[in-house]
This record gives sequence, C-alpha cells and structure tokens, in this order.
Amino acid sequence: MQAIRRLVAHHALTPGDKLPSIRKFARDMAVSPSTVVEAYDRLAAEGLIRSRLGSGFYVLANAVAPRTADVAPPIDRAVDPFWVSRQSLDAGREMLRPGCGWLPPDWMPLAAIRRAMRAVAKTDDAVLVEYGSTRGSLALRRLLARQCLSEGIEIGAEQVLLTMSGTHAIDLICRHLLRPGDTVLVDDPCYFNFRALLQVHSVRIVGVPYTPAGPDIALFEEALAAHRPRLYLTNSALHNPTGASLSPQTAHRLLTAAAANDVTIVEDEIFADFEPEPSARLAALDGLNRVIRIGSFSKTLSASIRCGYIAAREDLIDSLIDLQLAIGFGGPSPVAAELVLRTLGDGSYTKHLNGLRVRLARRRREMIAELAKLDVRPWTLPRGGFYLWCQLPRATDASDVATRALREGVVLAPGNVFSVTQTATEFMRFNVAQMDSDVLKRLQRALEQPAIPSLP
Amino acid sequence: MQAIRRLVAHHALTPGDKLPSIRKFARDMAVSPSTVVEAYDRLAAEGLIRSRLGSGFYVLANAVAPRTADVAPPIDRAVDPFWVSRQSLDAGREMLRPGCGWLPPDWMPLAAIRRAMRAVAKTDDAVLVEYGSTRGSLALRRLLARQCLSEGIEIGAEQVLLTMSGTHAIDLICRHLLRPGDTVLVDDPCYFNFRALLQVHSVRIVGVPYTPAGPDIALFEEALAAHRPRLYLTNSALHNPTGASLSPQTAHRLLTAAAANDVTIVEDEIFADFEPEPSARLAALDGLNRVIRIGSFSKTLSASIRCGYIAAREDLIDSLIDLQLAIGFGGPSPVAAELVLRTLGDGSYTKHLNGLRVRLARRRREMIAELAKLDVRPWTLPRGGFYLWCQLPRATDASDVATRALREGVVLAPGNVFSVTQTATEFMRFNVAQMDSDVLKRLQRALEQPAIPSLP
Repeated sequence: MQAIRRLVAHHALTPGDKLPSIRKFARDMAVSPSTVVEAYDRLAAEGLIRSRLGSGFYVLANAVAPRTADVAPPIDRAVDPFWVSRQSLDAGREMLRPGCGWLPPDWMPLAAIRRAMRAVAKTDDAVLVEYGSTRGSLALRRLLARQCLSEGIEIGAEQVLLTMSGTHAIDLICRHLLRPGDTVLVDDPCYFNFRALLQVHSVRIVGVPYTPAGPDIALFEEALAAHRPRLYLTNSALHNPTGASLSPQTAHRLLTAAAANDVTIVEDEIFADFEPEPSARLAALDGLNRVIRIGSFSKTLSASIRCGYIAAREDLIDSLIDLQLAIGFGGPSPVAAELVLRTLGDGSYTKHLNGLRVRLARRRREMIAELAKLDVRPWTLPRGGFYLWCQLPRATDASDVATRALREGVVLAPGNVFSVTQTATEFMRFNVAQMDSDVLKRLQRALEQPAIPSLP
Repeated sequence: MQAIRRLVAHHALTPGDKLPSIRKFARDMAVSPSTVVEAYDRLAAEGLIRSRLGSGFYVLANAVAPRTADVAPPIDRAVDPFWVSRQSLDAGREMLRPGCGWLPPDWMPLAAIRRAMRAVAKTDDAVLVEYGSTRGSLALRRLLARQCLSEGIEIGAEQVLLTMSGTHAIDLICRHLLRPGDTVLVDDPCYFNFRALLQVHSVRIVGVPYTPAGPDIALFEEALAAHRPRLYLTNSALHNPTGASLSPQTAHRLLTAAAANDVTIVEDEIFADFEPEPSARLAALDGLNRVIRIGSFSKTLSASIRCGYIAAREDLIDSLIDLQLAIGFGGPSPVAAELVLRTLGDGSYTKHLNGLRVRLARRRREMIAELAKLDVRPWTLPRGGFYLWCQLPRATDASDVATRALREGVVLAPGNVFSVTQTATEFMRFNVAQMDSDVLKRLQRALEQPAIPSLP
C-alpha cells in the first residue's frame, strides 16, 4: 500500500493509469500475490484506486490525500461553555486538562473493558449487526432496574430507556416536555453544558443559588412562585461543579415545593457511583412520580462506549421511545449496551469502584493541600468524586487565568461558565485526577502573570 | 450466583440477612473461595446483595427480580411511521420482517466485524475510555474524505463530522437550519421516518411526486414557487422506498431550481454502496455548496455499531459541532468509529460489497417473479439494493393487509406510511433479502383474507 501511495504521490502513477498486474507487482515487491490483492482491495476501499471488472486496477481521478492535520480548537473565542468543551475535547495530547470532566484512561477499568470486547467479538450475529429493540438491551435494563431497587426505587425493566448518552437522555426529555419560552430552574453554579443544552431549546434559564446541602430552599421556593418553571434540572449526588450532595431535609422540602407547583424534576445521577454511601435521592423519595432519573457510565466505565439511560414513569418512557425513533431510528447501539453490561457484570467492577473511591479521596486531600499554597481554597469538601470547586485569590478573574493557562498548555474550567448569573468570577473547577506537580507549576504561573485584556 | 438467587427467591434468605461466609459457602458448594468472591461481587454489581466493609455480604431490601419479559410492540395502534418502526424493531424473533429496512445478519460482514472487535480490544487506552474529538475519529474522516474525492467531491477531513447515525445527522441539520413553521420538501413517497423526524421539528411537509428518474421536476419547480421551502430532503441513489435513482438531467435541473430559490438540499446517501456504478449525485454536481451529504454504515456494515456522518461546508460543520456538543456532549463513540474504520479497511470489505450486489440482483429477480404470481408488481426495476416498491392487486388496501399480516407473523411496510399525501394506499415496500417461500405463503393468506375494519 505504501509503495502505491508513494508512486501516486510522486506522480509516477497519475489518475487513470493502470496499476501493475497483481502477479507482476507481487514479483517486484517479493511478496505473495494474495498480499498484493489485499493491498489493492484496501486502497480501493480508501478510494485511491478502483477495480474495473476483468481489467485490473486503475488510479482514480482526484486520488489526492486530503489535509492531514486535524483542526485545532479555536483559541480566540469567548470563554463560554463551548470554550471549555472544545478545549478539553480537541486540545492536543500534550495539553494538561485539570478543567476536563473525566478521569485519565489509566484510572478506568481497561482490563474489564478489553475482556468485554473479546467476549462481544464472539457474541450472537444479531447483536453485532442489527438495530436493537426500541428500549435497548433488556439484560442491561434489568440490571439497571435491580440497581434502582437496591436504592429503594421499585421499577421494572420496562421503565428504563437506554439512550446514546446521559446528555442525550436529558435532551430527549427536554424535547418532549419543553416548549420555547418555558422556564427551567438550574443550580447556580451548575454543569456548564446544561446551559448550552437549554439554550438549544430556547427556554428561559433561572439559576437558584447552591449551598453545600443543595439548592437554597427558600430561594428555590421563591423562584417557583416568581417564574412558574416547567422543569428543574440538577445533580443530587456529588453536584457538578461543587461536589456537594443534597441533604435529606433539603430533598424533602424541595420535593414538597415541586409537587405544590407541579414541577417535573430531572435528576442526573452521573456521579452517583463515586459516593462512598448513597446520599439523599429525589427519585427515591418521590418514587419516579414527578422525578426522572438520568444515569450514565461515562465517568466510571467509559466515555467512548456511549450509553446512558432514563428511568421514569412508563407513560413517559413510551412517548420518549417514539421521539428517539424519530430522531435517531432505533434504540442506542446494541454493541455499546453489550459492552457496558459485560463490564458492569465483570467480577472486577465492584473492586474498581471501591479502588476509585479510595484513590480519589487521597488525591482530593493532596490537592487541597497543594492548592492552599497558591491561596486557592475549596468552597466545600466533597464526600466523593474528582471535582474541587475553589475560590481563587481575591480579585482574580478565573476566565483571564484560563485564557493565560492555555498558553501554559493547561485547559481550565473557569467559574462563570457554570454560572447563569455570572457570579462565579473568582471560582475555578479543578479535576484532581488530572492534576500533578506540573499542572500546579503552570497554574501558579497563570495565576501570577499580569492580567491580559479579556476577549470580546 | 444461581444458588444465592434461589435462596432469595424462596425466602430462605430475606432482605437484611447475612450471606454465608465465603469460606463456608465455598465448602458447601465444593468450589474455590475465589469463585465465591467473584459470584458475590457480581451479585453486588446486580444490586441483589451488598458488602459491608469487614462484615461480609447482606441481602438488600427490595432484592426482588423485576418483570422478566420485555414489552411487546402495541398491536392496536394506527398504521403510521411509528407502527412500522416499532413492529420491525420490537417484534419477537419468530416474526418475519419483509417490511423492515435492513439485511438479515448472515448477509453482513460478520467475520470482518469480529476481527475488528478483537483488534479494538487491543487498541490504545484512550480510544476505549475517553470522549473523542468533537468531529470524531480523524482516521475515519480522512477515509470518508478520500471516498468523496473518488466521487469528484473535493473535501478535506475537516469538512466531515461524524454523528451517532445517519438519522441523527439529519436531525442535527434540521435543528440547526429549521424553525417551526418552515416548509420542507420531501419526495412522495419518501422514507417513512423522514415524516416522523420532520414532525418533531413542527415544520410544514410538502411532498413532490416521485418518478423513476427522481422527483417530477415540473412539480418540484411549482412547489418551490408556491411554498418557498427552506430545505429539500431526499435520497439520490436507490431512493427509499422505490429503489429508483436520480437521472443526470433531473439532478441538473433540480439543482438549478434549488439555487434559483436558495433552497438547501440534504442528500441522504445511505444506500449508495449498493449501486453497481454510482448514479448522479447532487453533492458531486454542486460541490457541497448548498448540498449537504449524509452517509451511514447501517445498511452494508452494521446497524448496531451506530455511526453516521455529515459532509458539508466547513462553516456549517463548525456550527453543527457546537450543537452536537450541547445535545450529546462530545462526538460520536470513538469505539464505534474505530470498529467502522477497521471493518471498512479490512481487505474483505470490497469483496463483501461486490458479493452483496450480485446476491441482491439475483434475489430481486426471483422475488419479482414470485410476487407476480400474487399479482403484486414492482413500480420500477431498481438497479440495486433490497427494496421493491410494489403495486398490490386492484382495490387492495395495503394497511389492511399489513394489519392482517401481523396475525400471520409477518411485519409489512404499507404504502401510505411513506406518503405525505396518503396516495400510496395500494402500494407496499418489500425487502427482498427478508423474503422466502414462507413469507410469500403468509403474504398470500393476508392478501386473500376478507378486509377487517381498519383501526381508528
């Protein structure tokens, strides 16, 4: 394949030219004819050459290689939720990412995933090539229903709908329940992508100040009265970005207020598996009456094997099935569901989770101590997970620091991308699993540099 | 695991009870302690039992197995696009599906997919567990760009965006370009799910009668003048459901008319790989100026490994990246992209496609002959693919036949689910790859039974 590519690149073979016969080229290259056949087939699959039945292979017109380098994330862009997503996802391998929302690969259950892959390589034909059922893998939905039961949420597999991802699950629910102009309550601060997602739905977004025990319940009740929201979107366990968890009292009052105002609650439990012991769950208190539970495996299993789920009332699930059919045809990838099922069922997975909790607890302690030396202090002490929501030294603009840090090769997550009211100017979300002495050194430089004019 | 499950099922172990110690249970079952440890870990992962640090394993409250059977598709539902999707996706294995839109598993490149799976099981950690780049796998986008070049569409990898599926790609574009109340032109008949998808976007759907050479160009021009549509959504190669392909003259006039009226065209090429030789392509004539090309691997590679793509102007791709981030976070599954890349690059894939074309050509001939015996005749003779769009015997209502066929264990695709104007009452789409003598026998019975009152 290289030899042919070189001949084309140097115009020794030009569009329309016939390639050497398989027998001749095999002789010239001193390989077997079958090797040449496979090389020609692959080059044909790539669109570089083409076979004409009975008359051999020809170089195609426009058989030119497209631009080779990938597109770097835009650097001259306002620091908004998309700034963080694009920087963390598209930054080159050399960049350090304490601002990103996932664990480094070597913290993930790689051995179990590779075992699952080898097992799926041997599984039924239908799983490998057919569209799945509309709700997705029954076996995985049963396992998720059993996990819900163990938290006191009594549901059957028919109340679980698999989706492409946790975010995709929230988008489905918003498309079904929201109309332009509706109002949605979120926590302030909240996961930055909630803001981006809700903007797509053209709804009014109202932020309720968050406390270390959950949303400020008095202000939550005021917001219900003042704005008559349709939906409240939150994380109860290890809230993103603060790492705080909902207290039982706040959970109870919140649910009572939501019921009085007929508000639907979407509880995104993506970080739940990082908790040492489950904290208060709105879904458990409510029994999935007005609460919709979202789950995902991106943080503890894999973000590459895309799969999330919705647990909700059966009538709601039934409507969401039609919606997911219309916009994606069929359920989520059966191969992905099978990989998740086998990894969750792998004997090592429980050990993996226990190991993660211990390792993260140690890392959080270490980083709290290191950050204190830079006068960067956590707003609260999370009981699990990899986030620290920190106050920067007085009068430091986190967005300026983030912009400067890019030039130091560090992607950060500045406070205001998480804040509807833009009142988190001096805050920064750190991912302790992505931090080391090198990150801290560069962070220190970014903190000390003189402020540069912030971008338009 | 079975032994413990049985004990719980028969209430020999009730919620809160401590399980036998690992050593004791290993002795009782005559297995090694490590076997028991793994069994307990798996039961814990399933939420049936729970380990308390240092004090062993306990049966969880509500450790009850949820309902075991999955939900059957609703039978008493109006025959609409969702009726076909749900019947074909959720019907039990025993159902025959000449109405579905995919090939049987044994027609797919299973060996190449299993090879790809085993290879991916050994690939880089990051591919297995990290979110991908926002555009998706660069290697796959390069391969797709080269395939476009071979059709005369000169683009670079930066003009390709990977998506969760072809349908998901169309939905992304609609979310970006359409507003409620806009008008969209589709072919009449068109792929039934286009109707379901466009309804989600609250747009006016106008159907243009389809001819064996493409849309009726005179009526297409009239529709442009009368309805000022924003978008035209079509398949140029092996149109679904008719199997017809666009003629060069129709393609040229259509593109000229679209340009004069500033209409964007979405060309869904999901069936292109079934063509013996490429037919006219709007994307090629236009050079991706106002044409957006959609591709997918669901029909020739796998519908389970969800991956599709959009090829378009770079400014449009850039906007779609933000939208895909907001609604799904990150690009499509890197694992899925890697599986597609390796299967496409597998030396056997070109042979697989050639084999499919030959096998389908023979099957189309056979089924045309068999259906003729039932007085069921194709509207046109497709040059590729697995669809036959057929006229039923005079005064036969295809929806009645489809409803009766369900009771015969056959899922059909009646004409009006494909028709915006509901003018395909006597037509039926058949998938020749899903047909055999048994299907034909049952179809004959469904055709001969007296009409039953159609559903509300």
